[in-house]
Amino acid sequence: MAHSLFAPSFAANSGEDKMLDRTDRSGVAHLTMNNPQTLNALSDQMIADVSQNLTEIAADKTIRAVIISGAGKAFCAGHNLREIADKRQSPDGGSVALKALFDRCANMMQQIRTLPQPVIAQVHGIATAAGAQLVATCDMAVAAEGTRFGVNGVNIGLFCSTPMVALSRNIPRKKAFEMLTTGQFIPASEAVDVGLINKVVPEADLAEHTRALAELVASKLGSAVKIGKEAFYNQIEMQVDDAYAYTGDVMVQNMSNADTVEGINAFIEKRDPNWPSQDK
Amino acid sequence: MAHSLFAPSFAANSGEDKMLDRTDRSGVAHLTMNNPQTLNALSDQMIADVSQNLTEIAADKTIRAVIISGAGKAFCAGHNLREIADKRQSPDGGSVALKALFDRCANMMQQIRTLPQPVIAQVHGIATAAGAQLVATCDMAVAAEGTRFGVNGVNIGLFCSTPMVALSRNIPRKKAFEMLTTGQFIPASEAVDVGLINKVVPEADLAEHTRALAELVASKLGSAVKIGKEAFYNQIEMQVDDAYAYTGDVMVQNMSNADTVEGINAFIEKRDPNWPSQDK
Amino acid sequence: MAHSLFAPSFAANSGEDKMLDRTDRSGVAHLTMNNPQTLNALSDQMIADVSQNLTEIAADKTIRAVIISGAGKAFCAGHNLREIADKRQSPDGGSVALKALFDRCANMMQQIRTLPQPVIAQVHGIATAAGAQLVATCDMAVAAEGTRFGVNGVNIGLFCSTPMVALSRNIPRKKAFEMLTTGQFIPASEAVDVGLINKVVPEADLAEHTRALAELVASKLGSAVKIGKEAFYNQIEMQVDDAYAYTGDVMVQNMSNADTVEGINAFIEKRDPNWPSQDK
Repeated sequence: MAHSLFAPSFAANSGEDKMLDRTDRSGVAHLTMNNPQTLNALSDQMIADVSQNLTEIAADKTIRAVIISGAGKAFCAGHNLREIADKRQSPDGGSVALKALFDRCANMMQQIRTLPQPVIAQVHGIATAAGAQLVATCDMAVAAEGTRFGVNGVNIGLFCSTPMVALSRNIPRKKAFEMLTTGQFIPASEAVDVGLINKVVPEADLAEHTRALAELVASKLGSAVKIGKEAFYNQIEMQVDDAYAYTGDVMVQNMSNADTVEGINAFIEKRDPNWPSQDK
Repeated sequence: MAHSLFAPSFAANSGEDKMLDRTDRSGVAHLTMNNPQTLNALSDQMIADVSQNLTEIAADKTIRAVIISGAGKAFCAGHNLREIADKRQSPDGGSVALKALFDRCANMMQQIRTLPQPVIAQVHGIATAAGAQLVATCDMAVAAEGTRFGVNGVNIGLFCSTPMVALSRNIPRKKAFEMLTTGQFIPASEAVDVGLINKVVPEADLAEHTRALAELVASKLGSAVKIGKEAFYNQIEMQVDDAYAYTGDVMVQNMSNADTVEGINAFIEKRDPNWPSQDK
Repeated sequence: MAHSLFAPSFAANSGEDKMLDRTDRSGVAHLTMNNPQTLNALSDQMIADVSQNLTEIAADKTIRAVIISGAGKAFCAGHNLREIADKRQSPDGGSVALKALFDRCANMMQQIRTLPQPVIAQVHGIATAAGAQLVATCDMAVAAEGTRFGVNGVNIGLFCSTPMVALSRNIPRKKAFEMLTTGQFIPASEAVDVGLINKVVPEADLAEHTRALAELVASKLGSAVKIGKEAFYNQIEMQVDDAYAYTGDVMVQNMSNADTVEGINAFIEKRDPNWPSQDK
């Protein structure tokens, strides 16, 4: 098999290593999945670490954008197959433990969606299976040239059914079906064409470009972005009449914010807004 | 701020100027938003004028396609921020008046959707915020090279929540999110790639190309286009089983039209159809 | 009229000719619509033949992928207009017979969607009206350079209301609306850009490329592909929370398959899986 598709997970985890690093700067929290020996597989511990960090960030008023990246040679190679095989050993064939795993993973993905702050995937190497789902789930994604994306569980007989929930809501139907049933990878250039990612940049510029995007978003009024992100995903699943009734209320709520009134007045008066409540 | 994002609205409206011009030719009604000093902002009056004209067109059997364009240097720069600021001065902080404004604007957008005739946006300069929503809402759109599109309310702390209802139903999710949270513009070439508009042409050819598209649509059997447009937006929000049951009935209804029978017979007999009920 | 848009159907069907050929090889069933004199129109008989073959294939464990192509100079030119005109002659103006026809056609399309095996359209010449719907309905599609796609019923006053159910779920909204209301064709290169087909290849290579794609899909574990295809179309119409709850169960069901466990173990052990239950 030419390409890794899930994390081999041969290296033992010492239990001492942190699986996730968080560094904050300029209103941006940068989470780095740090388990290179498993290609940052979404193991029980990795999912728990990401979830805990997202919970903390959701409550952190100083953070207005989030970056997720992976240490080592790949962004993320999906679920940890060794852990999955181990769970199969329980008397019920693993059905309870596996359902709990897939639910925790889906909950982590949904945390990204419901997080008040926009989340940007910074992707390099490969993003496969649940790793491609993570890219699709993030609000935006920037990838290095040479990155390959695949939902290739079908190659081992485990169809990427949960990953396709995010994938099929981001890219055209026939392309999603092709990726899911052939297991083939697409390059970053195609990923941007089909809408899976926002842009592709030279690998040397990946961190800088992603940070620039994050800091641009972080420079906006955080309360407005929070209101808007929540409304974005809520309205997209509504009938259009309901979506307009709902977002009309959201606009009024947004307008009731003193910072927004100041933003409008500043624009009319051709000056910069004075937003003291915006943590810098 | 390098780019206008909402109409500055500094110029007083005399109350005598018409905000909307309508000229009919060859079955095509051409509406021109004509308030260049506000970049054709969707003020109370502009929304009322567009709505009234659409109501009249809906009942006008001689019209089989509609063009909407803007006079001056831009298509439309969104809501009128000065009016919005003024509404804020009422004792309730403007919540009733603002909700009424956003509802009237959404109703105008929905009028385009429910209008029996296809509506084509003829776009130049900039289309921002509710102006970009207007482009996204029209059934089709043609833009001049150099046109820029943005949903940039976030720049002043007012997230484009109502515009995103139309935007997110036209373009891929990650691109919509990027435009909404960065406030950045996209050029016409990218707008056509992502599906926000149908085509981009040299500015000198914009009017001619848009008219040719409108007249092509107007040359079709109006009753069939009316049935089809209504069904298009109805079925797109249904589950696929329901959509087939519904559109099967629509096909039968379409077939019950004598003009359609004549169209089919003419095709079989290799001649042009004779459609006397089609107003020319 | 420069282009055929529905099958002229002037040639009588002898009743002896088979309208559909099926040949099986390497786990792939290849269905060839074989009524070139009508440009493979979806007549009563053609719909019945396709439906019957799909019913048989659904129960055939030796088949893991399906190709649909057309004999002669075109893939498929949509409904048989002469048959439709004939049905109009009944006392009720044909409403019962026509509704039954559109329902049978929609049922055939839905059979493709619910078939356990992926279905690939191999497209050349033209695919118009219900023929374009057939392309949009197939899980994947490969087309020859020079192929043209249109939903051009509007040209004869019969809006392509049932075809748009499939079309509007595959391509961006404004492009679908343009095709439906102008009746204009798009070339294969544009069809791939908008997501209507997966790839375009030189006509001389069409059969080979389509077969390679089908055999690649057929090389995967059939039980996993079956589970995945069913889940793909089910989840895509759900709210995202429901989609995750559902696909989590699907993943557990997939994991309960002994062949999948073998696939995972083989991957961990860096060997090829031993899948004896997979018919070769």
